[in-house]
Amino acid sequence: MANEFAIIDQYFTAIGQPAVSTILGIGDDAAVVEVPAGQQLVVSMDTLIAGTHFPADTSPEDIAYKSLAVNLSDLAAMGASPAWFLLSLTLEDSKSGWLSKFATGLRETADAFGLQLIGGDTCRGKLAISIQIAGHVPRNRFVTRHGASVGDIILVSGELGNAALGLAQKQGKVDLPSALQAECALALNRPQPRLELAPFLREFATSAVDVSDGLVGDLRHLLDASNCGARIERVALPVNAWIVEHNRYDYALDAGDDYQICCTVAADNRAEIDRWNRDHPNCRLTAIGEIIESGYSMSDGKGLVDLGKRQGYRHFD
Amino acid sequence: MANEFAIIDQYFTAIGQPAVSTILGIGDDAAVVEVPAGQQLVVSMDTLIAGTHFPADTSPEDIAYKSLAVNLSDLAAMGASPAWFLLSLTLEDSKSGWLSKFATGLRETADAFGLQLIGGDTCRGKLAISIQIAGHVPRNRFVTRHGASVGDIILVSGELGNAALGLAQKQGKVDLPSALQAECALALNRPQPRLELAPFLREFATSAVDVSDGLVGDLRHLLDASNCGARIERVALPVNAWIVEHNRYDYALDAGDDYQICCTVAADNRAEIDRWNRDHPNCRLTAIGEIIESGYSMSDGKGLVDLGKRQGYRHFD
Repeated sequence: MANEFAIIDQYFTAIGQPAVSTILGIGDDAAVVEVPAGQQLVVSMDTLIAGTHFPADTSPEDIAYKSLAVNLSDLAAMGASPAWFLLSLTLEDSKSGWLSKFATGLRETADAFGLQLIGGDTCRGKLAISIQIAGHVPRNRFVTRHGASVGDIILVSGELGNAALGLAQKQGKVDLPSALQAECALALNRPQPRLELAPFLREFATSAVDVSDGLVGDLRHLLDASNCGARIERVALPVNAWIVEHNRYDYALDAGDDYQICCTVAADNRAEIDRWNRDHPNCRLTAIGEIIESGYSMSDGKGLVDLGKRQGYRHFD
Repeated sequence: MANEFAIIDQYFTAIGQPAVSTILGIGDDAAVVEVPAGQQLVVSMDTLIAGTHFPADTSPEDIAYKSLAVNLSDLAAMGASPAWFLLSLTLEDSKSGWLSKFATGLRETADAFGLQLIGGDTCRGKLAISIQIAGHVPRNRFVTRHGASVGDIILVSGELGNAALGLAQKQGKVDLPSALQAECALALNRPQPRLELAPFLREFATSAVDVSDGLVGDLRHLLDASNCGARIERVALPVNAWIVEHNRYDYALDAGDDYQICCTVAADNRAEIDRWNRDHPNCRLTAIGEIIESGYSMSDGKGLVDLGKRQGYRHFD
């Protein structure tokens, strides 16, 4: 079986295109980078563990894709553009078939999103992928969770709940129509990080958060950080027809893995939202509610549901 | 049991002093940093897994210390100064006693070495700690593995083999004198990253590597990268008296976890090495051999031992 150094040499030395900001790439004790003039570095780190963050039988290509995508989604929420990443790969044994497919998936994803693997390590243990990602943002133009103000419109990108429905289908918990099955499987295995939204967020968003642990929980983080409340409308939630028909909004509200962006925009900028939606039919923003002074609730047509104590997806329960 | 967000809030929000280069710290989708003018960013990532990288019964404080120390050692080998880090912590369950001690160890270590925790995540699974570390180095003054030239002196910091002896003692494989037991336990649990060496390396080293997987293997990486050979002298190896008496140089040559620095310096700079050693009695550099055109061997007093194919410590065997 190949050793750690052979693995790095064989599979991970040429993933992504070297950027001018990469001074020294993979293969030394550390990598060396520069941050382009006028930019700041946005950094995040997420670990995906087999059986927790993806079903154990997920293909190596899909695991590679998803490991990068969830990190890219964090960059998108900050209004940043991807630059480079480090990988720490833990696997039971270094099966060359698996590694080769994983590296291919990583390479395709890195190329698609324009970032480069510049370092990391490999360990033996239960399959886990830690990725530390870095992006660039024009100086002090990053978007945080703490800028929402009373009266701001609350928006969410794409559709909510599809990844969780894809998982439920895979687990035999629901029986979706076949076209929706395919769409939800794609949402589960190939979530689209909303990097195209970054310039819009930098320009118009007062705050933003990555929806990875369920809308209710992630929006709550934004409200806590911004010290305000929200009222959202169930009827406005961007969900597929199956969720509406079966009244299973829990998939959209509480389930993880959507990797959409939830953001707030001043009501003055409503026209900019419309313009965005006209120009970006594949990354539409849907208004789902409004920032208020305090309280956190959802109108479900009959009355107000308190969301203040509702639990979203949690890794530690 | 506390959930992921509560863990981050409770234990990991104020570790290390905020630096001027930290624009946005822990608690958002990502952190934002700047790199000081005239500096480049040196980045590395290492994962430590319970049972592989430290004995499962290691104290939480020692685990925290070691997780940072092994990453700091990579920065030292590059000639960089520590700035910030991201932590991905995987643990079976979030026992508050363990977490509190781990956070204390992390805080003390971060304070001691002057770096700040700016982000990361927590997951459930077998205990593993991924740390991505970043340091600063004056522009293009970093030290790599690929600059060694024929005639350069090969140096190593501190003593080799103590961490491996500490582990062997713990496992009941050797019976060390009690003073040496304490010293080796310290080398195992509290390896000293050689950050004080960074300015010397930037000034005088033609190449450097972190000795984490055994001298023979790590020096081989340096030789491969520099496209040259080496001859080292067994009698010159900086080892404790027990290793000499028992002729157990394998602990110094092949065993991991030393976290010393192996570097090369042009023979012209011999006086600078002496000066360094006079001024830094606790971080002495010992000349162990010379860079030659090709071949990799060790004189053991009787003849030359070929090190070319000798295996050091490997995570994947």
